[in-house]
Amino acid sequence: MPKRDNRRRRTIWVKEGDSRVVQVIDQRKLPHAYEVLDLTTTDQAAAAIKDMAVRGAGLIGVTAGYGMYLAALEAPRDGSFDEYVLRAGERLKATRPTAINLARAVERQIKAVKAASSIEEKISAAFETAREMVQEDVDCCRRIGEHGLEIVEKISREKKGAPVHILTHCNAGWLAFVDRGTATAPVYAAFEKGIKVHVWVEETRPRNQGAGLTAWELKESGVPHDIIVDNAGGYVMQHGLVDMVITGTDRTTITGDVCNKIGTYKTALAARDNGVPFYVALPSSSLDWRARDGITEIPIEERDPDEVTHAEGLLDGKIVRIRTAPQGSPARNYAFDVTPARLVTGLITERGICQASEDGISSLFPEHR
Amino acid sequence: MPKRDNRRRRTIWVKEGDSRVVQVIDQRKLPHAYEVLDLTTTDQAAAAIKDMAVRGAGLIGVTAGYGMYLAALEAPRDGSFDEYVLRAGERLKATRPTAINLARAVERQIKAVKAASSIEEKISAAFETAREMVQEDVDCCRRIGEHGLEIVEKISREKKGAPVHILTHCNAGWLAFVDRGTATAPVYAAFEKGIKVHVWVEETRPRNQGAGLTAWELKESGVPHDIIVDNAGGYVMQHGLVDMVITGTDRTTITGDVCNKIGTYKTALAARDNGVPFYVALPSSSLDWRARDGITEIPIEERDPDEVTHAEGLLDGKIVRIRTAPQGSPARNYAFDVTPARLVTGLITERGICQASEDGISSLFPEHR
Repeated sequence: MPKRDNRRRRTIWVKEGDSRVVQVIDQRKLPHAYEVLDLTTTDQAAAAIKDMAVRGAGLIGVTAGYGMYLAALEAPRDGSFDEYVLRAGERLKATRPTAINLARAVERQIKAVKAASSIEEKISAAFETAREMVQEDVDCCRRIGEHGLEIVEKISREKKGAPVHILTHCNAGWLAFVDRGTATAPVYAAFEKGIKVHVWVEETRPRNQGAGLTAWELKESGVPHDIIVDNAGGYVMQHGLVDMVITGTDRTTITGDVCNKIGTYKTALAARDNGVPFYVALPSSSLDWRARDGITEIPIEERDPDEVTHAEGLLDGKIVRIRTAPQGSPARNYAFDVTPARLVTGLITERGICQASEDGISSLFPEHR
Repeated sequence: MPKRDNRRRRTIWVKEGDSRVVQVIDQRKLPHAYEVLDLTTTDQAAAAIKDMAVRGAGLIGVTAGYGMYLAALEAPRDGSFDEYVLRAGERLKATRPTAINLARAVERQIKAVKAASSIEEKISAAFETAREMVQEDVDCCRRIGEHGLEIVEKISREKKGAPVHILTHCNAGWLAFVDRGTATAPVYAAFEKGIKVHVWVEETRPRNQGAGLTAWELKESGVPHDIIVDNAGGYVMQHGLVDMVITGTDRTTITGDVCNKIGTYKTALAARDNGVPFYVALPSSSLDWRARDGITEIPIEERDPDEVTHAEGLLDGKIVRIRTAPQGSPARNYAFDVTPARLVTGLITERGICQASEDGISSLFPEHR
């Protein structure tokens, strides 16, 4: 979205002049440095996902898609080709259990590779499938922006053009997808249309994707915003400073339970308690058609406790990691939580807005009924 | 509470052999270093409060009490004595607007000084009043511990001796008072009695008083605990891992609205949504007998946004401050929020436990009816 060097950047692309190299923005360095990372093997793609050089539901999916293409490139050119790609898929899937886009991208690639006959065709099928995923991701985010824009426009009219205050948690911005993002897509659409918007960015401990990534995106795009600690989300709602909440999701069940970055649930509770509409923006690739109860059925990743006892940031021009907790105090690091459907005002999808319920979702996606 | 050098430490004391020097633990250095700060003037006491070398409702009050004693020591020994002390009180009160104990300690000292006739008697009255405040604070916390213990014991019996999981936010431990603390007093009482307890410590951004102070206290005392990010408080409750919440308060209205560190409100919402009892432990000195509506009537301090865009911690043995947010992204730093009485299961006071309501509070403190 934001232009760097006057070029419209995306989060992932194939290197100009060398289609055997996939390039991504190294998001671990943001917002302090903008660096590009080369991915030339499946293992590098898996490491980029696991270590969160790339993150976010959509981008994890697309990176896995390209990871499978890299697997096809490196697979032995004999009868064990499919088997090699299959095992590469297992490695990719093991990196992050919660995001459903990851498993889905891997499975789609396996299907594409199996369907092709010659090895050259298999490689080509994997490449084309990855490119399709990119295009679908971009299209979904654009459409989510258009649908979400209607809500923002309505609030803007009700407020007679006064700024619409939108609160978001974590990063479901363009950095989490290929372009535009989901939760931020309506914001960018409104901003481009000249509607006054202001975003409250919850910093989103422990990894600070709000302060580090969403704020960076908004700043680069010139969208007015303020960073607050996650704890302050309730305060700003209590004081009438929030018109709507939009977050993303890593996986949403067919009943509308929303699994998203840890803390989303508390924010949703605050929205409900203050009558603030709470929307979740998602491409249908984040819908889990098999899961019904988000709390019991979605696996929640537990990450390294060091993320909780430490913080990362810039000191004298270098990125450092400092200890915030006492030596010897243990910590637990649950990475996601589930916001029950009852707290969700609506789902903003590429096909329109629906209730967070089985009926609502089925009305937009009848083919999964 | 925890013993250092085999001596039972408090958070504030008069220097051995020199009653003109007040000493406090410099809590800005915790948990990374244990340092003692000398306060020899009112301005030093005011700075210690403003810069949060001392913090926490009770300790702010007692420090202000000693600050007024230091004002009496430095006041001109003529007819302008009372006036000097009065103005010193104004400077102290201006340091932190939310904690009611601060204003109350100052007013009590002014009354004591005015009531005494000679200058020597005025100084002596200020010293004795500060000592009384210390003793009252210690007594209150001890009694709060005894009353809160009953709740913990009941849960322990119901769980047939399995560990009682208590979640807390910020630090209302002994570091926030003179000794034992309020929210932690029942925990220490239970632990000393051999009841199995485990504390979930919310780190409490932006200043990390949970991770930095509460975890340090618990670790020093050997109480089992785990630090979590504030965002994870909802998750642990959703998964049945919390038996009760206890927090402190900086000011509670006569109707039971609880003003406390930013984020307490979100935590209370999560407790309510999961049927987890939410208790607030407080000495009656934190009750504001004049305020009814916590959200509109309690002044909320807004602190330096740098606390939000930065984090502080240990790097190579030194305490450093790192930037976590992008250069150029603005932030807001609301320090407290209000948990409406309807979300509070009960108030644990020095006189017993009551409902968070005007009737409940009046039943324990009829003299204020």
